Amino acid sequence: MKEEIMQLKEQVVELLENKQYSNLHDYIDKLNSQDISIMFEELSKEDMIRVFRLLSKDEAAEVFSYMESDLQEDLINLLTDKELKNIVDELYMDDTVDLIEEMPSNVVKRILNGVNQKDRKLINELLNYPEDSAGSIMTTEFVDLKMNMTVDEAFTKIRKIALDKETVYTCYVLDTRRKIVGIVGVKDLLIAQPDVVIKDIMETNIVTVNTLDDQEEVVKKFDKYDFIALPVVDKEDRLVGIVTVDDAIDVLQEENTEDFEIMAGITPSEDSYFKTSIFKHAKNRILWLLLLMISSSITGSIIIHYEEAFAALPLLVAFVPMLMDTGGNCGSQSSTMIIRGMATDEIKLKDYFKAVWKEIRISVIVGIILSIANGIRIVVQYNDLQIAIVVGITLILTVIFSKFLGCSLPMLAKKLKLDPAIMAAPLITTIVDSCSIFIYFQIAIAIMRI
Amino acid sequence: MKEEIMQLKEQVVELLENKQYSNLHDYIDKLNSQDISIMFEELSKEDMIRVFRLLSKDEAAEVFSYMESDLQEDLINLLTDKELKNIVDELYMDDTVDLIEEMPSNVVKRILNGVNQKDRKLINELLNYPEDSAGSIMTTEFVDLKMNMTVDEAFTKIRKIALDKETVYTCYVLDTRRKIVGIVGVKDLLIAQPDVVIKDIMETNIVTVNTLDDQEEVVKKFDKYDFIALPVVDKEDRLVGIVTVDDAIDVLQEENTEDFEIMAGITPSEDSYFKTSIFKHAKNRILWLLLLMISSSITGSIIIHYEEAFAALPLLVAFVPMLMDTGGNCGSQSSTMIIRGMATDEIKLKDYFKAVWKEIRISVIVGIILSIANGIRIVVQYNDLQIAIVVGITLILTVIFSKFLGCSLPMLAKKLKLDPAIMAAPLITTIVDSCSIFIYFQIAIAIMRI
Repeated sequence: MKEEIMQLKEQVVELLENKQYSNLHDYIDKLNSQDISIMFEELSKEDMIRVFRLLSKDEAAEVFSYMESDLQEDLINLLTDKELKNIVDELYMDDTVDLIEEMPSNVVKRILNGVNQKDRKLINELLNYPEDSAGSIMTTEFVDLKMNMTVDEAFTKIRKIALDKETVYTCYVLDTRRKIVGIVGVKDLLIAQPDVVIKDIMETNIVTVNTLDDQEEVVKKFDKYDFIALPVVDKEDRLVGIVTVDDAIDVLQEENTEDFEIMAGITPSEDSYFKTSIFKHAKNRILWLLLLMISSSITGSIIIHYEEAFAALPLLVAFVPMLMDTGGNCGSQSSTMIIRGMATDEIKLKDYFKAVWKEIRISVIVGIILSIANGIRIVVQYNDLQIAIVVGITLILTVIFSKFLGCSLPMLAKKLKLDPAIMAAPLITTIVDSCSIFIYFQIAIAIMRI
Repeated sequence: MKEEIMQLKEQVVELLENKQYSNLHDYIDKLNSQDISIMFEELSKEDMIRVFRLLSKDEAAEVFSYMESDLQEDLINLLTDKELKNIVDELYMDDTVDLIEEMPSNVVKRILNGVNQKDRKLINELLNYPEDSAGSIMTTEFVDLKMNMTVDEAFTKIRKIALDKETVYTCYVLDTRRKIVGIVGVKDLLIAQPDVVIKDIMETNIVTVNTLDDQEEVVKKFDKYDFIALPVVDKEDRLVGIVTVDDAIDVLQEENTEDFEIMAGITPSEDSYFKTSIFKHAKNRILWLLLLMISSSITGSIIIHYEEAFAALPLLVAFVPMLMDTGGNCGSQSSTMIIRGMATDEIKLKDYFKAVWKEIRISVIVGIILSIANGIRIVVQYNDLQIAIVVGITLILTVIFSKFLGCSLPMLAKKLKLDPAIMAAPLITTIVDSCSIFIYFQIAIAIMRI
């Protein structure tokens, strides 16, 4: 993929150097907007603006909307006010809002200067939706129809406004108070006779989200129902925007990345890996590391508490890493299954006892197998049946306990309206560690009388 | 969400009991197919088949396509051959293939009996695409146009075949050898004049995937380009199918779940949590646990090797859990960032040295902060500066090493054409453990002369 872009770049630079602007114009005209935006990252600023000015008005806006925000900023600083206005005019409303959110205030000022009164009001409204809400990711451009329009009239309306709308394939039927009363797809319009009234072919069973709903809710609805757009309504049930499926995919990826990061004990960040400074990376990681370091020191203190036991039998210490790692891995397996199950809506809070009961039965099976495997190893390696029994019992208890925690803590977090992903491997590992080491030495003392 | 379904169910059961079939028919007619399919899971088999028979032919097929495969099997066993044929006739080709893949052979036989010769050949072809390939997730129903058709002729064709196609919004322009030469959206057709020739408005810059491409590639293209369908071509570049965006979302969720599971040391499974038996769950988890248990025993052996050192100074053992956990957490942070970065195509193999250099600088910052915090704690708690220094140096080295591994191993896996997700927390933790314990005792012996 990357090589193709490098080839494009070389071709473009060559045409630029030879001042073959007409050829260059024809060449870039054939390219994908996305590919051009990626190529721009490889060009010098001077070359970028020269190429950009060769793009047609709508192509320029499209390329612009795909660019990374730092590159957008560079480009804006090179554009005249008139050129900037042209681009902003062509941008879809949600892309304009995204742009304003990313830019420093002097750039925002220049952008808003070129926007008319009505759009500026709308932009302000959109900017006020909470981060990660349906309102913040929706676009306000959609096709609205009326119930008593005919199919023919509907097509006339769609034709008239299609150019400016991101998607026209789902049309929304509104009543006089802008409440949504039906949905009709262009496919249904195509199949219907021209004189049929919209009311008779529209689908009245409508799935909507509220402007304040979390974007995760939006994505779940896209996952469940196979939509290409989802209507967003305000508190009075009036249609205010739609979320398109391509934005839903972006959100889905973003939410998944966030879960991966939180589950690895990283403060999530929306910036990309290479564009984040090492200090920011360090900051995102250090908090959890410090927290977990302190809690794992408790495990250390527990070990020291049993100094006499392992002074009498140093071999005891040899099984500490295995018990810690196995407990951590078992807990991590369970918490991952539960966190993921809740994220995809398969596991619900009311399933708690069902899930715990399942995890306990699984952990008994897993624990027994591990104990036997480990017992054989200990007897063969150290010829010490007593230690094999101590380690075996501890192992079974550790596995059960860690899988119980791995199942319970994420669901507890959800119950407390926290992100279940917090209760993942790192945290569970440290808790399980202390407990398994405590159990281990207690059992050792009891059985081996040391 | 679930409560709504329960309400539907109660309403349906009540209407069934009172034999108000006409009311019931009207009632379910208004429901979403997806909601009906979920409700079926709550009904008794007798009630399910009674409700199912009230559905219209196309509604029945749609509900059926959303049902879980075990419920589909139950239902098929209750249907007559004629009823089954009606459903299969209405199903989209990709859903039929999915169904055949899930059903036991006696059911497959009944399904194929109702399929005509031509479709049966197509089904066999589709069944032969490798699992998780673009060919295995595509649908063979799409709208194909010819270059010299007018817009008006195109609409006539679309109208005629729209009913049977999953999506009609992107039309594919084919030459006489069925090679794809252009793409045109219904939106563009709507805007264009009726007598314009397709050749003049079609987009010739086409993104395609090959039937044998991995489904992950397909999803990446959907993520990069905002498509609602992506054309799939065979080795001779002929169009054989399309992947629709709703299927791409399903694949995206599936791939993410798979990554979460592999990264937690679980053999990935496509079945849902509650529908998987405890033995299957245990089987999916035990392999990695056994493997990791063995490798963490190596850490134990290393500790035992330094028996004399900790016999002389038992306090040394107190820091083993903290060193192990911190090393594991640091490695897990880095590997997660790298694995996720590669999954979203942000980090590429050629970025290896850039990534390693970044991780090393991050780990120096993180390591120093952790060492200082920990050093203060040790001095305050145990009043032992020497141990604080030993632990501090070990900590810095462990952090650097674990972040280096966390960055390198996933990229090595990718290089070797393995899934980078294998090289996640569990594996890295066990490797880092042995090394950090080894370094720790070596430094302790060198500095403290024990």
